[in-house]
Amino acid sequence: MKTRVTELLGIKYPIIQGGMQWLSRAEFAAAVSNAGGLGIITAATHPGKKELVEEIRKTRALTDKPFGVNISMLPEVGPGDKTMEYVEAVIEERVPVVETSGRSPEEFVPLLKKAGIKLLHKVPAVRYAKKAERIGADAVIIVGFECGGHPGMDDVTTMILTPKTVDSVSIPVIAGGGIADARGFVAALAMGAEGVVMGTRFVATTESLAHPKFKEWIVKAQETDTVIIQRSIRNAARVMKNAAAAKVLEMEARGASLEELLTVISGRVGRRALFEGDLEGGTFAIGQCVGLINEIKPVREVIEEIVHGAQEILSRLQKILAQS
Amino acid sequence: MKTRVTELLGIKYPIIQGGMQWLSRAEFAAAVSNAGGLGIITAATHPGKKELVEEIRKTRALTDKPFGVNISMLPEVGPGDKTMEYVEAVIEERVPVVETSGRSPEEFVPLLKKAGIKLLHKVPAVRYAKKAERIGADAVIIVGFECGGHPGMDDVTTMILTPKTVDSVSIPVIAGGGIADARGFVAALAMGAEGVVMGTRFVATTESLAHPKFKEWIVKAQETDTVIIQRSIRNAARVMKNAAAAKVLEMEARGASLEELLTVISGRVGRRALFEGDLEGGTFAIGQCVGLINEIKPVREVIEEIVHGAQEILSRLQKILAQS
Repeated sequence: MKTRVTELLGIKYPIIQGGMQWLSRAEFAAAVSNAGGLGIITAATHPGKKELVEEIRKTRALTDKPFGVNISMLPEVGPGDKTMEYVEAVIEERVPVVETSGRSPEEFVPLLKKAGIKLLHKVPAVRYAKKAERIGADAVIIVGFECGGHPGMDDVTTMILTPKTVDSVSIPVIAGGGIADARGFVAALAMGAEGVVMGTRFVATTESLAHPKFKEWIVKAQETDTVIIQRSIRNAARVMKNAAAAKVLEMEARGASLEELLTVISGRVGRRALFEGDLEGGTFAIGQCVGLINEIKPVREVIEEIVHGAQEILSRLQKILAQS
Repeated sequence: MKTRVTELLGIKYPIIQGGMQWLSRAEFAAAVSNAGGLGIITAATHPGKKELVEEIRKTRALTDKPFGVNISMLPEVGPGDKTMEYVEAVIEERVPVVETSGRSPEEFVPLLKKAGIKLLHKVPAVRYAKKAERIGADAVIIVGFECGGHPGMDDVTTMILTPKTVDSVSIPVIAGGGIADARGFVAALAMGAEGVVMGTRFVATTESLAHPKFKEWIVKAQETDTVIIQRSIRNAARVMKNAAAAKVLEMEARGASLEELLTVISGRVGRRALFEGDLEGGTFAIGQCVGLINEIKPVREVIEEIVHGAQEILSRLQKILAQS
């Protein structure tokens, strides 16, 4: 497959595994890259520069294909802002690709560019996509309201954000939110995206580090089994609908402080629950496309099914549109 | 173009103009049908059977192509349920297609079928789509969270609802919500839909009866300029973000009764404002795809641009996917 995204990143298929806190580790990201997509490890999973450097080296040992590092600059990353440490790590290790999210990575762009790193900035609104282009991002990832994790505060969906972003910037657009199979992939390309980012679909893979109970939940869950929390702190997050999420909504309704909320939403709480298989004990980023996922399968199969499925869809579209 | 929807309805392109209160009148619907889509007039715009029969005859005089009648069975239709009157009108006039929405049309299905009428039932969730199939609908229209009007209470988007509905029923699926141009059209087809329904795009056409001020507003509006109201009465509606919508949200927040809400949301209030060009004076169904609409143009151009645009997108997809 050939788009400006495959060219830019040097990958076979324009399928990117979005950075997922705790889960996007070396083995997992390398599996995605080895299958022809772009695997991304997550900086915030690591306490500091030293550990991230180790993880980057581990990833490099597991794949000779390009991979990326997600540097999330959201407030909930952890106590103390490690962004500069993470940036130093990716620069020193000459990581091929960096995915940033949260606030604008403007101040780090010259450093990243100088190191020859390709920058993908992930945003939930068109105005931020324009800014991403202005500050020098090589491509922009636009995520819709249906995405797991942080869909922004505007509640605008992938069907609108994708074509609108394509109309609004000149750099390549990568679409995320609601994409779990070949149908979403081709839909995104039809709307002008040159690549897709997927998170939820990759959580339910053989290689994913999520506790088996989470993977089983994903297989059973419906599209109505997610909910948006954290609106009160202007950091909306789409998560699994569980006891912890209900607790957060209840706390937000009565005007709880960030400090109080952190007793439920903090990364430490989530990490423990995620790895112990405590389905109710933390808040977990999950997209609405959870309702489209019916099977746990290896990363390679997920990607190959998209690649083959896309061909079938193309044939179907040709038949439908042939007469017009 | 050929899908089960074009075959079922006997239309050239699988593009349906969804029923729009006050706006979907004979001339307008006929323009859509004459351009190769399916125009739909709205029963609830008419006080009773006699007036609807007149409108159907007027439509028939303006087009020899198939057209439809929307029979909305939502509570806000007006004082007194006219559903049976409307059903009698479409049966006596042998209207080719009926689009139902709101509650299940189950009780009317035998009558409609006996009259040879094709039934499209419009729903905002997969469970209702399954029910539509069970009760004998010929096709199901599934609308996502981004749609104007009534997106249901689940907040699930078109990117998920379309493929999930295709997986869940055997009858043809028509997708709505977020579709305003060829990109959304091909995306919907890629996700397995066999037709699309559009509302907002058709409001900003030369033939639309909306006051010019509304059409101009649509051209200028962004995808963030809509809002969901009426959640408190479990009849969520996506409308233009204006003073009336803000007023409704404020009333809902303080627990206003339906009676109080009706002083702002009633059809009479909306109709007056719509035709007088009072942009703040009523609540108006508008989808998020308003952010994708930049020009007022004739219905025929809207449809032809989709048809031609689809070919261009197909060529682009062929190039992208050729190498894989």
